[in-house]
Amino acid sequence: MPDRGAAGSTRTSYARMQLGEPHEGWRRVIYEIAFESDTPAGRLFDKLLIIAILASVAVVIADSISALNQRWALAFEIAEWFFTILFTAEYLLRLSCLRRPARYAFSFFGIVDLLAIMPTYLALLFPATHALIDVRVLRLLRIFRIFKLTAYISEYQALLAALVASSRKIFVFISVVAMVVVVMGSLMYVIEGPEHGFTSIPVSIYWAVTTMTTVGYGDISPQSPLGQFITSLMMLVGWGTLAVPTGIVTTEIALHHRTGKGAAAIPGLDREGLRSCANCGEEAHSSRAQYCHQCGAELPQSE
Amino acid sequence: MPDRGAAGSTRTSYARMQLGEPHEGWRRVIYEIAFESDTPAGRLFDKLLIIAILASVAVVIADSISALNQRWALAFEIAEWFFTILFTAEYLLRLSCLRRPARYAFSFFGIVDLLAIMPTYLALLFPATHALIDVRVLRLLRIFRIFKLTAYISEYQALLAALVASSRKIFVFISVVAMVVVVMGSLMYVIEGPEHGFTSIPVSIYWAVTTMTTVGYGDISPQSPLGQFITSLMMLVGWGTLAVPTGIVTTEIALHHRTGKGAAAIPGLDREGLRSCANCGEEAHSSRAQYCHQCGAELPQSE
Amino acid sequence: MPDRGAAGSTRTSYARMQLGEPHEGWRRVIYEIAFESDTPAGRLFDKLLIIAILASVAVVIADSISALNQRWALAFEIAEWFFTILFTAEYLLRLSCLRRPARYAFSFFGIVDLLAIMPTYLALLFPATHALIDVRVLRLLRIFRIFKLTAYISEYQALLAALVASSRKIFVFISVVAMVVVVMGSLMYVIEGPEHGFTSIPVSIYWAVTTMTTVGYGDISPQSPLGQFITSLMMLVGWGTLAVPTGIVTTEIALHHRTGKGAAAIPGLDREGLRSCANCGEEAHSSRAQYCHQCGAELPQSE
Amino acid sequence: MPDRGAAGSTRTSYARMQLGEPHEGWRRVIYEIAFESDTPAGRLFDKLLIIAILASVAVVIADSISALNQRWALAFEIAEWFFTILFTAEYLLRLSCLRRPARYAFSFFGIVDLLAIMPTYLALLFPATHALIDVRVLRLLRIFRIFKLTAYISEYQALLAALVASSRKIFVFISVVAMVVVVMGSLMYVIEGPEHGFTSIPVSIYWAVTTMTTVGYGDISPQSPLGQFITSLMMLVGWGTLAVPTGIVTTEIALHHRTGKGAAAIPGLDREGLRSCANCGEEAHSSRAQYCHQCGAELPQSE
Repeated sequence: MPDRGAAGSTRTSYARMQLGEPHEGWRRVIYEIAFESDTPAGRLFDKLLIIAILASVAVVIADSISALNQRWALAFEIAEWFFTILFTAEYLLRLSCLRRPARYAFSFFGIVDLLAIMPTYLALLFPATHALIDVRVLRLLRIFRIFKLTAYISEYQALLAALVASSRKIFVFISVVAMVVVVMGSLMYVIEGPEHGFTSIPVSIYWAVTTMTTVGYGDISPQSPLGQFITSLMMLVGWGTLAVPTGIVTTEIALHHRTGKGAAAIPGLDREGLRSCANCGEEAHSSRAQYCHQCGAELPQSE
Repeated sequence: MPDRGAAGSTRTSYARMQLGEPHEGWRRVIYEIAFESDTPAGRLFDKLLIIAILASVAVVIADSISALNQRWALAFEIAEWFFTILFTAEYLLRLSCLRRPARYAFSFFGIVDLLAIMPTYLALLFPATHALIDVRVLRLLRIFRIFKLTAYISEYQALLAALVASSRKIFVFISVVAMVVVVMGSLMYVIEGPEHGFTSIPVSIYWAVTTMTTVGYGDISPQSPLGQFITSLMMLVGWGTLAVPTGIVTTEIALHHRTGKGAAAIPGLDREGLRSCANCGEEAHSSRAQYCHQCGAELPQSE
Repeated sequence: MPDRGAAGSTRTSYARMQLGEPHEGWRRVIYEIAFESDTPAGRLFDKLLIIAILASVAVVIADSISALNQRWALAFEIAEWFFTILFTAEYLLRLSCLRRPARYAFSFFGIVDLLAIMPTYLALLFPATHALIDVRVLRLLRIFRIFKLTAYISEYQALLAALVASSRKIFVFISVVAMVVVVMGSLMYVIEGPEHGFTSIPVSIYWAVTTMTTVGYGDISPQSPLGQFITSLMMLVGWGTLAVPTGIVTTEIALHHRTGKGAAAIPGLDREGLRSCANCGEEAHSSRAQYCHQCGAELPQSE
Repeated sequence: MPDRGAAGSTRTSYARMQLGEPHEGWRRVIYEIAFESDTPAGRLFDKLLIIAILASVAVVIADSISALNQRWALAFEIAEWFFTILFTAEYLLRLSCLRRPARYAFSFFGIVDLLAIMPTYLALLFPATHALIDVRVLRLLRIFRIFKLTAYISEYQALLAALVASSRKIFVFISVVAMVVVVMGSLMYVIEGPEHGFTSIPVSIYWAVTTMTTVGYGDISPQSPLGQFITSLMMLVGWGTLAVPTGIVTTEIALHHRTGKGAAAIPGLDREGLRSCANCGEEAHSSRAQYCHQCGAELPQSE
């Protein structure tokens, strides 16, 4: 990977991009800090952001514990407003430095960024929505954006690649299981009935999912001999069958190992692909991409 | 796969079949719509059928929720009779267009089709059987017939092939587990006894299955020190052993990957095999089959 | 496999064995029926024995259900004595036809055979031991002897071979897990204490096994925040680690597939090895064995 | 492996080591007994130590059972002091024979050795700390030191090697699961709320871990229809995803098998590596190491 952090190579690699980019000056500086992660300033920004996210999530979690909530109510509220204003400023800066901010606002991370700050304002304006204030914990999703920083990037991508490669089979498997679960749940509703906790077919389906995935809460369990017999068969056969997704994922991981490509097994999902679009902020580009797959702007190229 | 949907090739491929087929005219048209899925009309019919099945199942499920049942009782009954009459008409049409309808009536999908409509009539004639009316949810099984339509057919068949290839080993494994479970259940019945919830050997066997498959409801659990010790050993050893079905299925899936054939790993269970018999409606034929394996009628051939 | 069922080849293959065998006449006939499974009479005997075992186990199980027990008490007692006398006769016949019956009496199947009949007599002589009468269900273990009859013999042996090949690794894994479980159980006993259900270290260890194997009854569960935090870590890390036995068994099964030997992966544990010793009745001999590994008597050889 | 237990070869292999070692006479003898396991005296010492550890742990466990505690209180106290004095003497001897005992005292096994004896003294001096006395069970960890003695060393190291090789991927997987669990736990806290047992976000996260790992205690379970629906999705998707660590470990184990190196798959973690440093007692050295990786002292070399 070429060291685009060095001034010279950066200038070369951004040459083409600059042609299509209107913003210069402070907006350019903000863009490089907020969206790029291969400059020293961008790296520092990302690290501070992780700390702020984790701290704000810790405040939300601590706030939900009634013992802590009663004693430190004011401190939590101050911390909450501090983080809300901080993330609001960051959100506005991100919007300001892009040529088409609307693109960013409606992208996945744009919506997550908005969800991270909206609840606090909403709870202030409409007290009735206070119950939703814990949606703030979705801030945690913002960390995934910065995951690319870590030293574990290749393992992360190898896992993701194995999951993506298995996703169609896993989808088929889960859809078949979903049908089996609906049929078995309804059957148990007929056999056990509301007096044994199977109060409706949806509840029975919930029970069947709990059983087939071997979670087994036990809040609902069969009481009649016939129900227990059918449940036993269901557990034995279902259990044997549920080895399938494990087999699928194992095979995919083994194949990635054998091809020796690891993270690059999904074409283009490698380190080179971690470029941001200067137009809309989209980040997950293929290494062979020349244009942003979200807004069509030309991408910075590595030489 | 030859495009048998086009008029010309269809005529050629059905040439031989027509020799052995008595029905012409409207019956032929119905047959092609109801049983074939590679003509535009057949595809449309299948899609409408999926919608009708899912809608009727949704009505059955919603009807079981007492809150909804009390408010919308009449609407549910009307919807129920609408779907029952619809499926009855479809069932009669399917029977009418086949040369030997009895063959179809006693095949797997024929019985499922009948089970989908019988409960409503039975509940009308014999009110005492009303408890069984939720058997209607078996309508969901009818969707499996149309599964071949989807874009996921090759994944579906690869999974099926891996399961079929593993089925003998899984059967042996489950039969050994079944014996272990009977012995361990009886042992725990002796150790714990009825006062700790192990009221009979069948209940103890149900408990043992719950434990060996790691579901663990907790509705019954050992209370005596000896019982807890034996359960701990049973969980540890059993847990280690239960890795076996996973290993079996994983190996089969890996083998299918290696041979690079995927769906075709079961000889003939490929797209070509998705032909219906014009005589009895049976559908799962091998690609090399020339005659229906259920009734012996000649099959349509792909050139 | 040579057809030793045919008279001619049988005579040849048993030639050497007869030299070292004292019993002739009726004892020889009984031996061939009771211990050999490759003669028509032996096969029939095995099939009748399976039916008798299953029927007697069904009686034991049905007898444990109080509703059935109260209504059919006499019928169950008659059936019980019928099976006990039948199995006693079989046991005595087995002993009578062997040259060294003591060897058989102390072998695994000899002890199982004795356990199958003792409880009924003991309950008659010492009414206090009636609680142990359900030990009769161990009769089920006798079926394993006849498992070699089935068409699934090669799958059974392939599974067994994979387990045997993995057994050392699984033993090491379980011993490490056992130590972890003792340490974690004691830790939780200190943290949660008797007031939350962790009444002693053995009970806490039982809880830890329940958790590590993902069974999770819920009869005991952590209540304190620290206990729940440690349990969460334990579940996540332990869960990730417990993938190990699955990996071990999967690898062994895959290796057996690759070598293409299946059942023969354990040297000698193949169909040829299913010969009985005419001296002590031991059955699991290697195909290369010339002498019984239990009593040293010469074995019948396949030519 | 050269037989360093024989006097001649031992002298040769320790030649270089002696140059850097101050202690001779009785200290040298103690060192060889306490730290080396390839001399007859060292092997005997290790075996006696295992027995003492297991016996002392058995006393701790038995002491926690109130029925036994009340009856045998005095016997348990005597046994406890016997083992405490024994382990104290051993600890002091270990310290005395090393050139730099502080290095050993702060190493992993040094701290474990100290934890094994401290609680008894602390409970005597500060009765308030009596609750922590069961920390003594950590003595069990001392057994890992002697694990190298067993015949299962290669299986143990193969498993360890597979885990170490998978550790980065497993860490990434668990960190992603940890984030998902925090988000899902918070979501369920909002949906279900304290009235259904989700009293705070940490408790909800604990519930989410319990669900994702399929443990499923059932002490907390969703009650509202929406909560049960989201839980069902969470179980199905999460369950499919959790096949990942199994796949990772399986692939690593299969790779070790294929390379045919087993225990040597981690460079240097083989039998040769089981040398102790005469300076600080550290034991897990690479086979290629010439100097202790903890204190820098020269290591005994195998010729």
